[in-house]
Amino acid sequence: MTLALIFDVFGTCVDWRTSVARDVAAALPHVDAIQFAMDWRAEYDPAMKRIRDGGRGYVPLDDLHLENLHRVAARHGVTAPDSLNTAWERLDPWADVVPGLTHLRKTHIIAPCSNGSIALMTRLARYAQLPWDCILGADLARDYKPNPAVYLASCAALRLDPGEVMMVAAHNGDLFAARDAGLYTAFVPRPTEYGPDQATDLAPEADWTVVARDFTDLARQMA
Amino acid sequence: MTLALIFDVFGTCVDWRTSVARDVAAALPHVDAIQFAMDWRAEYDPAMKRIRDGGRGYVPLDDLHLENLHRVAARHGVTAPDSLNTAWERLDPWADVVPGLTHLRKTHIIAPCSNGSIALMTRLARYAQLPWDCILGADLARDYKPNPAVYLASCAALRLDPGEVMMVAAHNGDLFAARDAGLYTAFVPRPTEYGPDQATDLAPEADWTVVARDFTDLARQMA
Repeated sequence: MTLALIFDVFGTCVDWRTSVARDVAAALPHVDAIQFAMDWRAEYDPAMKRIRDGGRGYVPLDDLHLENLHRVAARHGVTAPDSLNTAWERLDPWADVVPGLTHLRKTHIIAPCSNGSIALMTRLARYAQLPWDCILGADLARDYKPNPAVYLASCAALRLDPGEVMMVAAHNGDLFAARDAGLYTAFVPRPTEYGPDQATDLAPEADWTVVARDFTDLARQMA
Repeated sequence: MTLALIFDVFGTCVDWRTSVARDVAAALPHVDAIQFAMDWRAEYDPAMKRIRDGGRGYVPLDDLHLENLHRVAARHGVTAPDSLNTAWERLDPWADVVPGLTHLRKTHIIAPCSNGSIALMTRLARYAQLPWDCILGADLARDYKPNPAVYLASCAALRLDPGEVMMVAAHNGDLFAARDAGLYTAFVPRPTEYGPDQATDLAPEADWTVVARDFTDLARQMA
């Protein structure tokens, strides 16, 4: 029985691409803001990979984002202010997210299980009005998804078995890892997370426990 | 400048004494429920002390509560069901708490910094409708207040310096420790936490940053 739902956040709950681009455009008027946002995000996985593989101790995502910001800015031929890093705290939710979470919360514990830090997820929740019961994720495990420690630490923090928790994500890779760790899985596609030409994660790639159109549909299926 | 307020919970936000007694009365009709609740709570500090002093590894408060439940039940000549341990997840807030927190949250990050686990604080917040932005406290430090690690880990999780955070408590001892760790302090008396004959923590014992009548007054002073 699913007692708690834990959520991927970047892409699944919030539209990082257009939100980050908005702040980039304000801070760096001479760059292609959408391309800059995409390039910044593209540095995300390689930066975590060294930590996941043990080649570097745990560093919160805020710090990785800042390192990546300056690397991408240099590539675009500009100097970015450190303050632009807080763009990741001001990401707009997809329209169905707040109503869906509000419904789901009536019957389930809901929490982010993101690679974002507690600090980042807390500030983002305040901005986007995400009604989480608590903040779980990478900081608790001092490791990054899709390493199993992150899913398992999030379940353990709630004193629940993985078999009492469902991972919700727009990314099949996240769900494969969650399922391997013993969690239930829910896929919610976000076909424009990467823009109009997105080619990945348009459809479920396994028989996930639940496949939902959006969070409102997920709430209906979980009721 | 105070950017976040972190709160003691048992006694400061919620009336554990009458709430636990209510569940004790339902589960164990033949004991003095108020006395049982007081005795159960009296085991709290000694149980944590061994962990604070390094004589035992970190064990979440849920488990200490369960050990203490059975010890106290034996002393009262009864056998308690394990399920009674969830009484600590159903504690009523003092009347000013939810309105005060709701106001404070408009301008500050608010979070519990309790010796309760993330699991316990999450379930309690759902029951008592405490509008926390995130759950901090003992679990993050794997240590117990008043050890400084708990205050410092809570600030660090928010990526704030202790000098940007205020600890709110009805217990002078909690505030002495928070101040030593570099935090601002706010004292809110709860003169009936231990019942009508309470003799401790009736007044501030140092010049705390703020002294407030209740959480509504605290919100007014922090505005």
